[in-house]
Amino acid sequence: MPLVDLIVTDATVLTHTTPADAGYPDDGGAARATAIFLRHHDIGIADGVIAWVRPTGTTPQAEREGAEVIDGRGRLAMPGLINCHTHSAMTMFRGSAEDVPVESWFNDHIWPMEVNLTPRDVALGARLAIAEMLLAGVTTFADHYFSMDEIAREVTASGARAVLASTYFSSEGPAGLDRSAAFAAGWQGAAGGRVTTMLGPHATYTVDDADLQRTARTASQLGIRTHIHAAEGMFQTESSLAARRVTPMQVLHDTGVLESGVIIAHGAGITPDDVRWLAPVADRIGVAACDKVYLKHAQQSTTPVRLLHDAGVPVGIGTDGPASGNTLSVLESMRMLALVEKQKTADATWLTSAHALDLATRQSALTVGLADSIGALLPGRRADVVLVALDRPHLQPLHDIAAGLVLSVQESDVRTVLVDGRVVVDEGRLTTIDVQEAIDGLTVRIPQLRDRSHGRRIQDYAP
Amino acid sequence: MPLVDLIVTDATVLTHTTPADAGYPDDGGAARATAIFLRHHDIGIADGVIAWVRPTGTTPQAEREGAEVIDGRGRLAMPGLINCHTHSAMTMFRGSAEDVPVESWFNDHIWPMEVNLTPRDVALGARLAIAEMLLAGVTTFADHYFSMDEIAREVTASGARAVLASTYFSSEGPAGLDRSAAFAAGWQGAAGGRVTTMLGPHATYTVDDADLQRTARTASQLGIRTHIHAAEGMFQTESSLAARRVTPMQVLHDTGVLESGVIIAHGAGITPDDVRWLAPVADRIGVAACDKVYLKHAQQSTTPVRLLHDAGVPVGIGTDGPASGNTLSVLESMRMLALVEKQKTADATWLTSAHALDLATRQSALTVGLADSIGALLPGRRADVVLVALDRPHLQPLHDIAAGLVLSVQESDVRTVLVDGRVVVDEGRLTTIDVQEAIDGLTVRIPQLRDRSHGRRIQDYAP
Repeated sequence: MPLVDLIVTDATVLTHTTPADAGYPDDGGAARATAIFLRHHDIGIADGVIAWVRPTGTTPQAEREGAEVIDGRGRLAMPGLINCHTHSAMTMFRGSAEDVPVESWFNDHIWPMEVNLTPRDVALGARLAIAEMLLAGVTTFADHYFSMDEIAREVTASGARAVLASTYFSSEGPAGLDRSAAFAAGWQGAAGGRVTTMLGPHATYTVDDADLQRTARTASQLGIRTHIHAAEGMFQTESSLAARRVTPMQVLHDTGVLESGVIIAHGAGITPDDVRWLAPVADRIGVAACDKVYLKHAQQSTTPVRLLHDAGVPVGIGTDGPASGNTLSVLESMRMLALVEKQKTADATWLTSAHALDLATRQSALTVGLADSIGALLPGRRADVVLVALDRPHLQPLHDIAAGLVLSVQESDVRTVLVDGRVVVDEGRLTTIDVQEAIDGLTVRIPQLRDRSHGRRIQDYAP
Repeated sequence: MPLVDLIVTDATVLTHTTPADAGYPDDGGAARATAIFLRHHDIGIADGVIAWVRPTGTTPQAEREGAEVIDGRGRLAMPGLINCHTHSAMTMFRGSAEDVPVESWFNDHIWPMEVNLTPRDVALGARLAIAEMLLAGVTTFADHYFSMDEIAREVTASGARAVLASTYFSSEGPAGLDRSAAFAAGWQGAAGGRVTTMLGPHATYTVDDADLQRTARTASQLGIRTHIHAAEGMFQTESSLAARRVTPMQVLHDTGVLESGVIIAHGAGITPDDVRWLAPVADRIGVAACDKVYLKHAQQSTTPVRLLHDAGVPVGIGTDGPASGNTLSVLESMRMLALVEKQKTADATWLTSAHALDLATRQSALTVGLADSIGALLPGRRADVVLVALDRPHLQPLHDIAAGLVLSVQESDVRTVLVDGRVVVDEGRLTTIDVQEAIDGLTVRIPQLRDRSHGRRIQDYAP
């Protein structure tokens, strides 16, 4: 047994989200759920890795000697949350394109404004985003944007974990994929393993089949996956069928992108027939659901969670960029998904809170390709741990911890956050990020960022 | 000009939500919205009433002499939020009936558990609820429950404002309405005017027409309104039409309840034809929309905000009880409504953030019958003021204050709360409520509260 350097003591520990995973018996507190909460347990951490999870008081003094202690009393310890799809730096545009249809959002607002970006804007936007995410218990995010070197440097400095993909369009010619591949090769495993990489073709409607084929081959050569927008809504699937007689999922299949592993951003236009392409590669793909954004953009279709669940395809929780979703909170996105799913399926018994927690932890880790290292508080996993205060008035009395975490919790209930066993949020305070510098730096840039007088845009939206 | 005893200095002040109300010009910061934010303004308060709202630095020293000062720098000052429909004491059942259809929620869970209630449970549940609401900027709530004297005492002690209705069913015989009327008459105007009252018939399917007629007459005699569940979903309207050939709205019309003024809880089953009954009495009615609960209960119909808007009928924001909605946050309920409305109408330009703020303030004040005294930061209104921190990472950079308040804000951004000019939340700390006593008192009661072995329920749900 390794000696540990950090122990979280006497917390309520969410260890497993499906009984099949569990070595522990159900403690009775969550009898009707598949989430298991171990009361009065300690988490031992050695060199950034979870060494053990044990009942409080059962670890010999010799094994505790010299370890730092974090008092977990009254706290819920859960795996660090995972944001499976975002454009973190777009904090800079939060609230800048409100109450407009999605076509206008792209063509009249965001893509013209993105002409104005500097690498420093991206760096500051990402820093602000990481601050927001860590404070809300999000320890890992899958990012898709430009100037990705800047973002990787911010991840490195902040202590967060990220899965980074450098965005490209076929309109850039071969340079786009080359840049994305160079980024992926150069940063894979950086920051002590906290940075992993994927390729970042923008979408099935902005990257052509030849480039997608090249993407799949490159991904396989590099041993990494791809992160792409596909079937963002049923309207895109219909458009693809009308133009090409294939769905976006078949495009991903036919080009080899599915086979090499992929985060499918949104997938709200996935059809029952598409399961034929997805099910065989369920071990290397995941769909990132971002329900708040669907509602905000007045989109009728949402990620078909039940269909994917029945097909064994992981569904992760994403926020999308804060210019569309306005926050980077996985807790909020998880809550929204649970509520939307109940209404959409007309089944109040569907998408229980325990299920929602499974999506936000285990299935999100599968979605971003890190199921072996994060997503559960199990020995051998990286010590990405979130401590949530359970004693707040809005959570009490605590009949059901899972329901509290999904339907009542507030982001500010996240008190302490560890990534690789390092404290990055200490009782609600960031320990690694100068967020005021990012806020001040972006605030003075607002007039320039919003300038659309140049009449250009980085791309046309016509899916 | 009266001398003031309290001044909030140098805040950004949300003064008006429709330009027609505004004596101030739009400052340019909210040009495309109807919400108007006055930067660098002071709010002078005298004897619990707003005396003036003025640009910072324009009030002569003689008029400031001796006044207490609250520093509003970096803060948004907005009217205290109004929860137009709740059952506050049901905090005691928060999380106790999850993931079940609405029929089961009533008949198998809540109504059997409510057999176990003691007046002390209700008092502690209400105290906990008031704590949660004040911390989230909710200064007024319209409550509908049992043991209402207990709740009125908690309101009195807490410093909150409430519009209280004692619930009754026709199954109780005449005693129910008599009790509700006695409560209403006895408590009207209590706590220095912070308590106002309504009659509380439970619903159009649990109170018969004769009792509703008697309710309307009693309400008119007492000079008060009624608060009732009606057309909670389209299924109830269809059921009423099938059984009686009239919609719930026509029942309220025919029995005189509409004419005497009413909060219609939910109204998700209001039909376009019902406008004929509602529009003529739009000056004395309002519909409380609780969208989170509709989704959670997998209900397809939601409060028809656009229909009511076009008919000139006020729509207020409600949370419903925390046993169904899991929180008492008007901020959350407002956000949910804005998002649901966009999707439901397939119109991303509908239900702007400024509109959502109008619902949560001005229209909610109309809904609860207090439009002359709360719902706006205007001279002569009661000084119910919420100060929101705008400098948090998740709100920055601040392109659009209204969008920030509706789509990004967290409840913990509420820092200071005044009711009648009294500080009830000071930098996130409750000043009037011993919330731990309520939490502890309810926690030990959980086993007894959940006991359903008696096989009884307070009522049958068969709308």
